[in-house]
Amino acid sequence: MASRMRREIAEQAGAVAATVSAVLDAGPELQKLFAGRRHVLFAARGSSDNAAVYGRYLLETRARVPAGLVAPSVATHYRARLDLSDTLLVTISQSGHTGELVEVQRWAAGAGAATVAITNDPASPLAKGADRTLVLAAGPERAVPATKSYTAQLAAVAAMAAAMAPEAGLEAELADVPAEIDRLESAGDGVATAVELLADAGPVVVTGRGLVYGTALEVALKLEETCLRPVQSLSYADLRHGPIAAVGPGTTAILVAADDGPMVGPVVRLAGDLADRGARTLALGGGSALATACDHHLPGPRLPEAVGPLALVVPAQLVAEALARHLGLDPDAPRGLTKVTQTDQSAAPPGRA
Amino acid sequence: MASRMRREIAEQAGAVAATVSAVLDAGPELQKLFAGRRHVLFAARGSSDNAAVYGRYLLETRARVPAGLVAPSVATHYRARLDLSDTLLVTISQSGHTGELVEVQRWAAGAGAATVAITNDPASPLAKGADRTLVLAAGPERAVPATKSYTAQLAAVAAMAAAMAPEAGLEAELADVPAEIDRLESAGDGVATAVELLADAGPVVVTGRGLVYGTALEVALKLEETCLRPVQSLSYADLRHGPIAAVGPGTTAILVAADDGPMVGPVVRLAGDLADRGARTLALGGGSALATACDHHLPGPRLPEAVGPLALVVPAQLVAEALARHLGLDPDAPRGLTKVTQTDQSAAPPGRA
Repeated sequence: MASRMRREIAEQAGAVAATVSAVLDAGPELQKLFAGRRHVLFAARGSSDNAAVYGRYLLETRARVPAGLVAPSVATHYRARLDLSDTLLVTISQSGHTGELVEVQRWAAGAGAATVAITNDPASPLAKGADRTLVLAAGPERAVPATKSYTAQLAAVAAMAAAMAPEAGLEAELADVPAEIDRLESAGDGVATAVELLADAGPVVVTGRGLVYGTALEVALKLEETCLRPVQSLSYADLRHGPIAAVGPGTTAILVAADDGPMVGPVVRLAGDLADRGARTLALGGGSALATACDHHLPGPRLPEAVGPLALVVPAQLVAEALARHLGLDPDAPRGLTKVTQTDQSAAPPGRA
Repeated sequence: MASRMRREIAEQAGAVAATVSAVLDAGPELQKLFAGRRHVLFAARGSSDNAAVYGRYLLETRARVPAGLVAPSVATHYRARLDLSDTLLVTISQSGHTGELVEVQRWAAGAGAATVAITNDPASPLAKGADRTLVLAAGPERAVPATKSYTAQLAAVAAMAAAMAPEAGLEAELADVPAEIDRLESAGDGVATAVELLADAGPVVVTGRGLVYGTALEVALKLEETCLRPVQSLSYADLRHGPIAAVGPGTTAILVAADDGPMVGPVVRLAGDLADRGARTLALGGGSALATACDHHLPGPRLPEAVGPLALVVPAQLVAEALARHLGLDPDAPRGLTKVTQTDQSAAPPGRA
């Protein structure tokens, strides 16, 4: 029987299409909420935080809106009194029940921010506390590692950017995404080889930059959650500023890139430098240039860089799910993780209820 | 003969004291430059980026200024046309010669931002291009792993926050820092034990949160640079949201905390959870509560949390330097790293000039 995670991976094209459509319908309301404001701040954790990283790059590069990520402890632990009257706070949470994020949203509203919640549960405390809720059309997600809720979050963020800056042309680019998700999900090209490669891997580092940086973070998180291995993830810029010293024979590097855009060239050069240090290299996306530069290749979507992340993660999700099974682990319920994490409460340790 | 890195660690108290004094003198000019603006954005890489992370938390929690980190590629690769007329950009670079950061500074100025450069070289392109330069009083730094330039950067950022918000009381807190740096540097408590522990360690993860989050990032980077091991670093909040699944017997966890403040309690609880998963735990700071909760302890400074990071990194610098020598490596010149990294140029690979 297929794992829940595997079935939820297969539901992504529909979830993305329905989410894009619903968020575009809310476009006029979003424009009204942002009117007179200048900044967007995201608040999220885990996979949702990786969706926020994508949102930050997309808003800045395509909607010309300065964007960033909240440091939640500034709200929850330091209770800083900031003036956020020029800011729209976008909180992203699959469950909408993470207490920390509910608290951040309340703090931001008290500081003058307008608030949008992106969540799978319209009845959640996060949704109820927001000025506007964008409900993910993902349906219930049961596997602990987020898949369809993550890509639906990316879809919500991209459609939000499209609604805030209709002139940017994102709506048209989004139209091709569901078909590419389906194509990659059913093809599974390169997945078996990647599973073999990673099954006996030593240190693993995942790297990418810019619009796909969030994808690199999410790929690392999926591998960690489902396969119980520490996996590093960092932008190739940060990798070059120090951590590359630790790359050597025995390192497996996963290089993430869209098929087009300004990052393909630098990532191809990075592949050569990592190979010179003795690392094994696995490309995720990056087109034929990156495929040629790396030892192994997971083909990515044929989509422009700005919307590529909505489908680019799919081959890596397939790898994480298959790798977990290959290692005799349960992809649906990783050791010691629960579906809703409360940041400042202990999870049940292994071996206890 | 002592390594250059070791000698530069010993020069930090003087570098910090002189930097604080110089930046406080520039206070009125900084206030004038920020007048009418609402946001601070930092741009930096490597150790300087870890100083920027500290700056972001300090400005938000103590100076009530919304702050964040630039995504440099938004400027250098995507050339986004943002309106930054409400922003002060603070660029931090030891050398002032990192081309990427010079380009970010030029981009931000073109977008309307005021600019401050924090650098060790007043004749550098970064310094020459800024509205105001804060020169680090660190003297020449020769070892590739940054030590005294990093703590001087923290000092510059803290003094800048003190100058921007005189009512916050930071100036008085900074007065005690140099003596605590000297005390920790000469005491070296726990360093030999930590070196033994790390010499045969498997996966290493460094964690902290809030005002010391940047310290956790810097500790991981120092260990990676000098000892050529991949080391993960993440806030304990992010650790709990997924990556904790990969913690098990064989993991060594370094928990970083100030001696006071709202993070001590949660980090003590985290120590228990990590021990329940079988990890070995090493405390850096955190006072007696964290020392008791962990297997081993590196005592930190007796300083308030807001200025603690200026001295808290010192024991970890001593560990990284000694660990490199213990492993037969050169702490001054890690494999394949150069003192000035140009993000989009290949460093010389190992074995080539």
